[in-house]
Amino acid sequence: MDRISKAAFRRLPRYHQILSAFEELGREYISSRELSEILEINETLVRKDMADLQIRGRQNQGYGISALRQRIEEFLGLQDVTEALVVGGGHLGTALATYPGFEHYGLKIAGVLDNDPSKIGSMIGPYEVVSVFRLASMIQKHQIKLIILTVPKDSAQELTDIAVNAGVRAIWNFTPRELNVPEGVRVRNEQIVGGFMALSYYLKNLSE
Amino acid sequence: MDRISKAAFRRLPRYHQILSAFEELGREYISSRELSEILEINETLVRKDMADLQIRGRQNQGYGISALRQRIEEFLGLQDVTEALVVGGGHLGTALATYPGFEHYGLKIAGVLDNDPSKIGSMIGPYEVVSVFRLASMIQKHQIKLIILTVPKDSAQELTDIAVNAGVRAIWNFTPRELNVPEGVRVRNEQIVGGFMALSYYLKNLSE
Repeated sequence: MDRISKAAFRRLPRYHQILSAFEELGREYISSRELSEILEINETLVRKDMADLQIRGRQNQGYGISALRQRIEEFLGLQDVTEALVVGGGHLGTALATYPGFEHYGLKIAGVLDNDPSKIGSMIGPYEVVSVFRLASMIQKHQIKLIILTVPKDSAQELTDIAVNAGVRAIWNFTPRELNVPEGVRVRNEQIVGGFMALSYYLKNLSE
Repeated sequence: MDRISKAAFRRLPRYHQILSAFEELGREYISSRELSEILEINETLVRKDMADLQIRGRQNQGYGISALRQRIEEFLGLQDVTEALVVGGGHLGTALATYPGFEHYGLKIAGVLDNDPSKIGSMIGPYEVVSVFRLASMIQKHQIKLIILTVPKDSAQELTDIAVNAGVRAIWNFTPRELNVPEGVRVRNEQIVGGFMALSYYLKNLSE
């Protein structure tokens, strides 16, 4: 298989998060009903997602939490290690470079780059900040396929071009810039403010 | 109206981001075709979303970018000011408290709280870090309805309870903890690692 719907694919991170949380609490099974309530989606949809993942539940018990979590990890390739460079060592770059959870997902930060001479050579967590001029050579040396982009938006496209030319195939874009990339390179736009927009709508309609 | 489908609602932040980017480049109109290509969705769907927002395009020109952006802002309540407290002054809390874009969306940070005595009284951007013990009193004093939660997960539920009891109605949750809240309180789970999961899947299938 390894083909599921786009909507199901979008739900995998939430499933994974919920399963991890329940697993930590010592739970072994979770029902489609529980998952549907937490995700606020129809139970039939949960059952369909599980079938797509080739996961079967047990009568009156539900799905084995650990097996389901591992199935999602396998499906998404989280059991392999992906090395990434953090490009931009500001507050957000620092938060991402030192984010404690990433290693559980196979994401390994291979370095942090910045263009500020006062930052280069200083430490961000365990990483010595490297000049952004070394972006291409670091990508080639470590065969990096993924960069995490947290630079000011005016330099986002230029650094993307350099990274793509050096061999990067995926860009996790935390800048508000729309990036142009050639075919075969994937951009994931991370719009932090999107979460606020949903809450703003909720609060607005509360007070009306 | 002010009723649109869940899927359309989820697309609003991306529409907004794209419109803002084009507006900055000096563009006045955008077509449903351009929007559909950038979002990688069907053009018919774009047209339907615009109709839901009661936005009409012009023949051969498309949608007026500025009017459409403002319509989305009005719909989401982004033209009002929402005050929020950042609870947790670590790297992520610092990045969010000092995020330059938030003010454009009406999000105003009213303060930053932390439980670390060495941080209390120090400055994060323009904010003097306040003890987390003052969470309830600050919420009540400023009539805060939203908190941005970036604490370690073991204190997430406890602080949520305190905030909700003090009057908070929306929680922007950056912790991996599933939060229990009473009816009428909205939680938005921000799963930063979700973006990586999608890219990991892409990279995995590249190399197979």
